[in-house]
Amino acid sequence: VLTSAESDRLRVVLVSSRNPLNIGAAARAMANFGFHHLRVVHPYDVAFREARSAVDAESVLQAAEEFDQVTEAVADCALVVGTTAGTRRTRQQQLHRLEAAATIIQQHLQSGSKVALLFGSEKIGLSNQDLSHCQLLLRIPTQTEHPSMNLGQAVAIVLYELVRQPGEGAAAPPVPQIPLENQPEKPLATAEERERLTILLLEVLALSGYARHPSPEEKVRGLMRHLPLTQSDVHHWLGLLRHILWKLKAVPPPLSD
Amino acid sequence: VLTSAESDRLRVVLVSSRNPLNIGAAARAMANFGFHHLRVVHPYDVAFREARSAVDAESVLQAAEEFDQVTEAVADCALVVGTTAGTRRTRQQQLHRLEAAATIIQQHLQSGSKVALLFGSEKIGLSNQDLSHCQLLLRIPTQTEHPSMNLGQAVAIVLYELVRQPGEGAAAPPVPQIPLENQPEKPLATAEERERLTILLLEVLALSGYARHPSPEEKVRGLMRHLPLTQSDVHHWLGLLRHILWKLKAVPPPLSD
Repeated sequence: VLTSAESDRLRVVLVSSRNPLNIGAAARAMANFGFHHLRVVHPYDVAFREARSAVDAESVLQAAEEFDQVTEAVADCALVVGTTAGTRRTRQQQLHRLEAAATIIQQHLQSGSKVALLFGSEKIGLSNQDLSHCQLLLRIPTQTEHPSMNLGQAVAIVLYELVRQPGEGAAAPPVPQIPLENQPEKPLATAEERERLTILLLEVLALSGYARHPSPEEKVRGLMRHLPLTQSDVHHWLGLLRHILWKLKAVPPPLSD
Repeated sequence: VLTSAESDRLRVVLVSSRNPLNIGAAARAMANFGFHHLRVVHPYDVAFREARSAVDAESVLQAAEEFDQVTEAVADCALVVGTTAGTRRTRQQQLHRLEAAATIIQQHLQSGSKVALLFGSEKIGLSNQDLSHCQLLLRIPTQTEHPSMNLGQAVAIVLYELVRQPGEGAAAPPVPQIPLENQPEKPLATAEERERLTILLLEVLALSGYARHPSPEEKVRGLMRHLPLTQSDVHHWLGLLRHILWKLKAVPPPLSD
């Protein structure tokens, strides 16, 4: 069970939501389950704060933060989780059922990390680019023939799973000790720190003429995403890459042949 | 886990719903989780079958049965369960948290009984008279200060709890040895493969003039050691580093100053 300090580390991030009613419904579910931090990335209707379905959730809506980019909306989070109906195949990240993903999210919140939980638009969900920011994907166990959920309902179910008490359920399974990383004493890097590393690496690669790959950015993000980098790791890797970058900048431009 | 025959014994009963959108949302959640039998008791708006929020749930809505009285709507059910925010005190029935109530409901469905699950109106919930038909009450574990849920969200959460797999939750996660390892099906790199990567990185660093550190090799090994690299990761990183190395080799030697 999450303490209020732990719940307070969760960021619910709605990306490109079309319907203010759904944003209101998400805010209401957050109020119901004790989560406070809503972030909205370029909503179609900027009047979302007036959503009428936000009964009892005015404070969550009023405090909601708006962002232009997913990158900024997840910058301070150490774990970024995307929700998906699971119909689009992606082999980049682990896809967990909600039941299992919730355990991982809880452990991160309990260990002091901020966690971003991304929900895509009602129509198309999260784009591949949105997904490229996620280290983990979760899917609500819907029927294969009816995979797509209403946004407000999806948010409510995920938040419920985070607060439900396993002990009161049927199986009363004990919470396992899942090692989260190899250096539990060192804090994991935030999305912003990872991003700094990714951008520097992309710069190095650009200078190296790495252009064969159709989308180097997606590829590099894919490689970086699942590495459990600590803040100290990022610091050291940045130092190494800066050296390489500095040297590469001394390379003369290629002859125009 | 419920079989489809067992799911088919559940009746979702909406009593005095005001908003057709909420009836549509309830129907949609039913389609999402494999439940088919919706019953509606004197809805305020009888045009509920046209609810636009019923994406993907037309068949549930079209097959919905209408009743004038709760008595009739629950007549064929062996267990009648009422949902409540738990604010109204009732000493008539047992009040269980959803986690525990779901187990009882599942057991009835599995034993061949039909179960009715009653949800009240958005405004006032189930009346005392409605509650008098129930043998069991359940409450979704919302915050004490924000107990009242949106109807569509409440239905979705209860149905989710009925289909969730305890085994996939905390207890028996598809546990990767290193949990944020995102590609459990892909084999981790062998020491030899890691070594190849380390050596190439050291070569790149040497060409970059990275000599400040007293023992670059030790430092690089330290950074690499705890990253759960897969064989495929190593392959890709080697490709990136070879690019950088190739470019660095084009750097003219430093002037002898």
